[in-house]
Amino acid sequence: MLWFVGLGVSGPDSIPKEVGKIIQKADLVYLESFTSPIYKEHEEDIKNLVNGNFKIAKRWLVEDGQEILKAAKNSTVILLSYGDPYIATTHIELRTRAKLENIETKTAHSASVITSMIGEVGLQFYKVGRIVTIMSEKKSITTPYKIIFKNLIEGIHSVILLEYNQDENFFLDPKDAILSLLDAEKEQKRNVVNENTFAVVVSRIGLKTQKITSGKFTNLLKTNFGEPPHSIIITGKLHFTESDAISVLTECLDKPLDNSSRIKSVSIQMIEKYVPLVREALEEIKPFYNDSKEFCEILQNAELYINDAEDFLKQGKDENAVLSIGYADGLVDALRMAKGIDPKM
Amino acid sequence: MLWFVGLGVSGPDSIPKEVGKIIQKADLVYLESFTSPIYKEHEEDIKNLVNGNFKIAKRWLVEDGQEILKAAKNSTVILLSYGDPYIATTHIELRTRAKLENIETKTAHSASVITSMIGEVGLQFYKVGRIVTIMSEKKSITTPYKIIFKNLIEGIHSVILLEYNQDENFFLDPKDAILSLLDAEKEQKRNVVNENTFAVVVSRIGLKTQKITSGKFTNLLKTNFGEPPHSIIITGKLHFTESDAISVLTECLDKPLDNSSRIKSVSIQMIEKYVPLVREALEEIKPFYNDSKEFCEILQNAELYINDAEDFLKQGKDENAVLSIGYADGLVDALRMAKGIDPKM
Repeated sequence: MLWFVGLGVSGPDSIPKEVGKIIQKADLVYLESFTSPIYKEHEEDIKNLVNGNFKIAKRWLVEDGQEILKAAKNSTVILLSYGDPYIATTHIELRTRAKLENIETKTAHSASVITSMIGEVGLQFYKVGRIVTIMSEKKSITTPYKIIFKNLIEGIHSVILLEYNQDENFFLDPKDAILSLLDAEKEQKRNVVNENTFAVVVSRIGLKTQKITSGKFTNLLKTNFGEPPHSIIITGKLHFTESDAISVLTECLDKPLDNSSRIKSVSIQMIEKYVPLVREALEEIKPFYNDSKEFCEILQNAELYINDAEDFLKQGKDENAVLSIGYADGLVDALRMAKGIDPKM
Repeated sequence: MLWFVGLGVSGPDSIPKEVGKIIQKADLVYLESFTSPIYKEHEEDIKNLVNGNFKIAKRWLVEDGQEILKAAKNSTVILLSYGDPYIATTHIELRTRAKLENIETKTAHSASVITSMIGEVGLQFYKVGRIVTIMSEKKSITTPYKIIFKNLIEGIHSVILLEYNQDENFFLDPKDAILSLLDAEKEQKRNVVNENTFAVVVSRIGLKTQKITSGKFTNLLKTNFGEPPHSIIITGKLHFTESDAISVLTECLDKPLDNSSRIKSVSIQMIEKYVPLVREALEEIKPFYNDSKEFCEILQNAELYINDAEDFLKQGKDENAVLSIGYADGLVDALRMAKGIDPKM
């Protein structure tokens, strides 16, 4: 029998009574601390609960899994981990393997750091987008940057987990993660983040020393967040109950801001840039075709398609808007080139 | 003092010892069951824990909040709810108001149905997109349909919660939710779902009668899922460890399928449709301009932009691809119209 038991976010205090009994009776208890650190003090408390054997499980031991599975064949084994046990994919894989070897598995779910922090900050859960992890390795920032961009376009919040490496006792500092995002901005230039981006840094969630700080990047970069672990949330469009909650429930350095309002999808950026340019190009070429009915019709068509582009954008049909402005531009440029005039863009 | 206490997903068995003590000592305990139902049996167990006053809290009582806040000013009050307390936005609002009235608040986080079900199904948490709720009211299906579409384009999973109305003891049946999505497909025609869409129905998560069924819509529609509550997950791109987990950990009616592979963004659909059409329109008009250098150049330009459209799409620059094919089409059509030939599309 193999139990997957989540410790929740507040250490052994959050172990349910029933689960406590199971831990006491188990033959072998593994404590896993590579997905998230377990405090020394909590480790001692857990050790004291255990009557059977107790062992710290390193990443390789869980990934390899053979020792754990072998033990679970003839005795009751528990794999204890921080938060909810299945946030870590290694645990899901181990469970699948156990099932395939006909080992019974049971689960004690618990509070995860992700749900806990969203609630503590006061954000609405159904407005949270895809979760990202920022690593210290510089090149890996592009994916989080792009996911945050997509989330902000949709007006939703981005939960950002920060690299943790147990072997080197390394936690990525929230300030380094923010700097990394600002670096990505310099390169990608999609106007996703800047020094006024509003964000929330959640430190030591669930522990007695929990602290939540919110404010603009520029002020967060001046803040000392204390001991790890930390996570970051970049908020999207804020409902007023969310702004109120952030103001009241967190240490709020700046008034909460809507980071989504200044974010523009690539389509919107294109329409805003090209509509005036194509209109101008059209006006310039009109006089050359005053006396030709066919060509006047082509230019009238161009005018209609420019208007269509704006209308489609208002209707949220971004792709049709881009297609229309491209088409209008093609009509105009064909007639410019025919007169030996260069395209405008 | 106002406590927000989560009951987790497995009833009173998942209450931590420390939280149990707080419940025993509290002056007044409210049990909230409008966000998710509490089983009669669990309700009795909780009642037996309480030494102070016990009261069922209806939605209006929590939303109004005055009674709870007044009581919390001079005594210890607990608001107990299913899952994690802050998944419900009403609870976050109440906490904000308590803070503003200088009432101390404390939280006992717990397992939420959302994290629990993702893990039980064996999916990777960071591959989950925005969460949606499907309601029985037919018109409201458009938003979930569009969010599922966006999630599938990104290759990520959609967690679908189903309507629960405590006053009418109404739960939306998973089969009705699936039918509603298929109806939306008929109207919206974005090819998001069809009878072969692979999905997972999670029933009574955390309870002893928990059951997880996975398969194609067509087979799920023939399945009896038993008592509510239920939720649905429509999976996106599946890592092989995820497919393995679904096959092993759930009652799997069909081999897990990648629902994302046949999903095409509007941009891709446009490029696939228009590139051959514009090429054809171009070939048709070429002979009319064989002896004119300026016009030949325009047509050569069109050819280059058609190729650009395909290249941009390969690079993931969807908007540039659409802009390019629109532009090429405009160039070609201008020259068709100039010869009195109708545009091709």
